[in-house]
Amino acid sequence: DLPVGHIADVLSAYRARICDLERDQRFRYCIIFKNQGALAGASIQHAHSQLIAIPVIPKRIKEELIGAEKYYQEKGHCIFCDIVQYHKKFQQRMIIENDQFLAFVPYAPRFPFEIWILPKKHTLQFMEVEDQELQYLSEILKKILISMRKSLNDSPYNLIIHSAPFNREGEKSYQESYHWHIEMLPTITKVAGFEWGTGFYINPVVPENAAEILKENIPDKV
Amino acid sequence: DLPVGHIADVLSAYRARICDLERDQRFRYCIIFKNQGALAGASIQHAHSQLIAIPVIPKRIKEELIGAEKYYQEKGHCIFCDIVQYHKKFQQRMIIENDQFLAFVPYAPRFPFEIWILPKKHTLQFMEVEDQELQYLSEILKKILISMRKSLNDSPYNLIIHSAPFNREGEKSYQESYHWHIEMLPTITKVAGFEWGTGFYINPVVPENAAEILKENIPDKV
Repeated sequence: DLPVGHIADVLSAYRARICDLERDQRFRYCIIFKNQGALAGASIQHAHSQLIAIPVIPKRIKEELIGAEKYYQEKGHCIFCDIVQYHKKFQQRMIIENDQFLAFVPYAPRFPFEIWILPKKHTLQFMEVEDQELQYLSEILKKILISMRKSLNDSPYNLIIHSAPFNREGEKSYQESYHWHIEMLPTITKVAGFEWGTGFYINPVVPENAAEILKENIPDKV
Repeated sequence: DLPVGHIADVLSAYRARICDLERDQRFRYCIIFKNQGALAGASIQHAHSQLIAIPVIPKRIKEELIGAEKYYQEKGHCIFCDIVQYHKKFQQRMIIENDQFLAFVPYAPRFPFEIWILPKKHTLQFMEVEDQELQYLSEILKKILISMRKSLNDSPYNLIIHSAPFNREGEKSYQESYHWHIEMLPTITKVAGFEWGTGFYINPVVPENAAEILKENIPDKV
């Protein structure tokens, strides 16, 4: 519901808080996320985001870093940059793009209507995002949220910023291979025995169909 | 609600189905689970379990196998056998045991009131369980389910059998290092942005307290 400029202020607050926490040497990672709706784990009703700084690199981020590094070693470029190029060329899972960002349904989404938002410029950490880029991100984020609300009947969701760990002396930096991004996970299906037992996800919605529906409901102007 | 003998029949059907599917060379793993209650992902109301045979080893099982193998290489024994010994010695997270099985709250449970049931005898696969062991398993399972219903106000839950992959020619068997078991995951908290973004779990209930409550509500006889 916020105007684009206010969303940029929220994102700017995210950035300021992470930059400040980076100075605390106890922390190696800082995750920012937003749970919207009780089914998505929100425990308070007013608009809010959450930040948790932790002294270890999260399991899931480590898996992403290792996977991206492996791709980089094999192909010589960042997998996320390649994903950007792919979606500019093949439109079947694209939702929307502007000068700086691109939003699409990933090739193998865990959840129905899962959406990823990637900066087009290769950037390791969310902290590095510039003021002018925040305006573009806010615009695309607002359009995506409006489309989600309309397409998914105001479904609860989680928004998660995936960024590289803090750069610490003696640690591998993943400068060339990793690329920060946002994952939007609507809470439509339930995670159950199969998912907990295997780490695999049953997604009954074809990603190309999800992208088409989300694209249709993107407003022209915000 | 079923009598112990009927629960043993259900478990025996699980075993028969897995043994049959093992003969199909397309499959490398077979997961059996039970989702109870809509919040735990059950989509039909009558008592039911689900079986899914898949042509790959699931991510989560692979992680367990690798972790158990690493422990075995370091210590020279099965980590699950060591867990059995630990809980027989230190009672603080124990719930109940009988001649063949042991139920406890694990050291670092992902979910409040998470329960693991382990066979005391080192056994790689659920398929190997004997008729007489199924009676003991049914007895402990029924007691645990009665306690869960009472302790957790009839909470939805997932029951998942974790077993080693099918033994295929040329594949590593994990015979010494892995040990089948059951994981019971009550659906009390919501999985949200932090969990999806990190692969770490926030559990607000101290496992020792959970074990104490579950233990108190175990019936003497079933």
